[in-house]
Amino acid sequence: MNAAPELSTQILRTPDLHPKGNGRHSPIAAVLLTSGEIDAIAGLLSLREGHSFALYAACDVLAVLAANPIFHALPEPRVARRALPLDQMTVLSDAAGVSLGLSVRAFAVPGKVPLFAEVDGDPGRSDDGATIGLEILDGCQSMFFIPGCAEMTDALRQRLRGARLVLFDGTLWQDDEMIAANLSSKTGARMGHMSISGPDGVMAAFTGLDVQRRVFIHLNNTNPALLACSPERAILQDQGWDVAFDGMELLT
Amino acid sequence: MNAAPELSTQILRTPDLHPKGNGRHSPIAAVLLTSGEIDAIAGLLSLREGHSFALYAACDVLAVLAANPIFHALPEPRVARRALPLDQMTVLSDAAGVSLGLSVRAFAVPGKVPLFAEVDGDPGRSDDGATIGLEILDGCQSMFFIPGCAEMTDALRQRLRGARLVLFDGTLWQDDEMIAANLSSKTGARMGHMSISGPDGVMAAFTGLDVQRRVFIHLNNTNPALLACSPERAILQDQGWDVAFDGMELLT
Repeated sequence: MNAAPELSTQILRTPDLHPKGNGRHSPIAAVLLTSGEIDAIAGLLSLREGHSFALYAACDVLAVLAANPIFHALPEPRVARRALPLDQMTVLSDAAGVSLGLSVRAFAVPGKVPLFAEVDGDPGRSDDGATIGLEILDGCQSMFFIPGCAEMTDALRQRLRGARLVLFDGTLWQDDEMIAANLSSKTGARMGHMSISGPDGVMAAFTGLDVQRRVFIHLNNTNPALLACSPERAILQDQGWDVAFDGMELLT
Repeated sequence: MNAAPELSTQILRTPDLHPKGNGRHSPIAAVLLTSGEIDAIAGLLSLREGHSFALYAACDVLAVLAANPIFHALPEPRVARRALPLDQMTVLSDAAGVSLGLSVRAFAVPGKVPLFAEVDGDPGRSDDGATIGLEILDGCQSMFFIPGCAEMTDALRQRLRGARLVLFDGTLWQDDEMIAANLSSKTGARMGHMSISGPDGVMAAFTGLDVQRRVFIHLNNTNPALLACSPERAILQDQGWDVAFDGMELLT
């Protein structure tokens, strides 16, 4: 569904972002997947050139990888596949087990199974780990990374209350946007996404949550807020939100 | 193995290269796959946004796609999967069956099974259709597209003799290039590729074949001939070869 450049895979880098070794060294030490959708997992195929890293994902998503032999291109032990348990703290380490100085707490959010894994048009709604959010902690600060979320639940609201930084699903501006653009017969809800605007939208859901910094990620290319000069961008900025961009500095 | 930009998937476009429809219209009417390697098939995942096209591949490669559920993102009948028979002429049409004014003759070349499908380190050498070359004809002219080839056989030599245009595997400059760069323990031969230079190389193999235009494609990022100012580029140009680039005009 998303043709626009996006990054729904959380890539953790060692502190120095530049290649330090010879040849094809990569600074990517670990990858965390938040779903099994193609936009979350296909980028792995570009990390097949002998890089060693740890690959963290919920069991559902590891099962998706296991069911597709193409991901044998990322063989153990060079790429260490690790199940990310839900609702507990995991200390992140690279493929060799060296700590990265970061921890993560993964949690299920309302979402759906990957589109390519839907069975007979069943929308595949899932609230038990097919889609997850991440709280990432460095010992001093923490941030939330939630690129896909179908609904703001009370539990999620509690979790996010007072957060320093939240990156959140900004796929669509409004629920019928793909239909209005004649690109799809699906609503955002059908695709497993809240929309930014409207009474049930993300901005409304964050009202009163006292989140210090709020940044939209995973914007679809039908979302008018992608355009820096759009009225929609102005609206979200008025409400204290930003739209992420490459090279953005998030915590200082 | 190839981190450099490359295109080993032959994409056929309708005569007008610009999008003509609304929304996400694509001018791509058909895709021909020449192997099941990731660099040949992963690009399909970027064509999942509702485009309709015909997908031609040899049976071995269709089987690779079928074995990976991730390619359900390209469902029938919108993406019409068609077996490309070897050694006979196939008239190409789009997903709706409308002729594209082009024909193709596919033929097996020495190659190998995809790296991710190798079994227990067996190099998976295959000469029976895991890797194919294409002769593409428009009724007036024809061209050959051979992005991977492990050996110049007598049969291939006969096929190419006197050709108007050949695009050919230029992965490596020399067989031990990846080893010398400390990037891999594999020779080019082990990876299913002839090298450009040397007595058993591509340039030597084309001597006396009277091919009018010869263009290297699929260059690995260790290949010094990628650099326009390199001595290796000068050598291949002296021998009547070019290196392909985006937007190159091939037949006039």
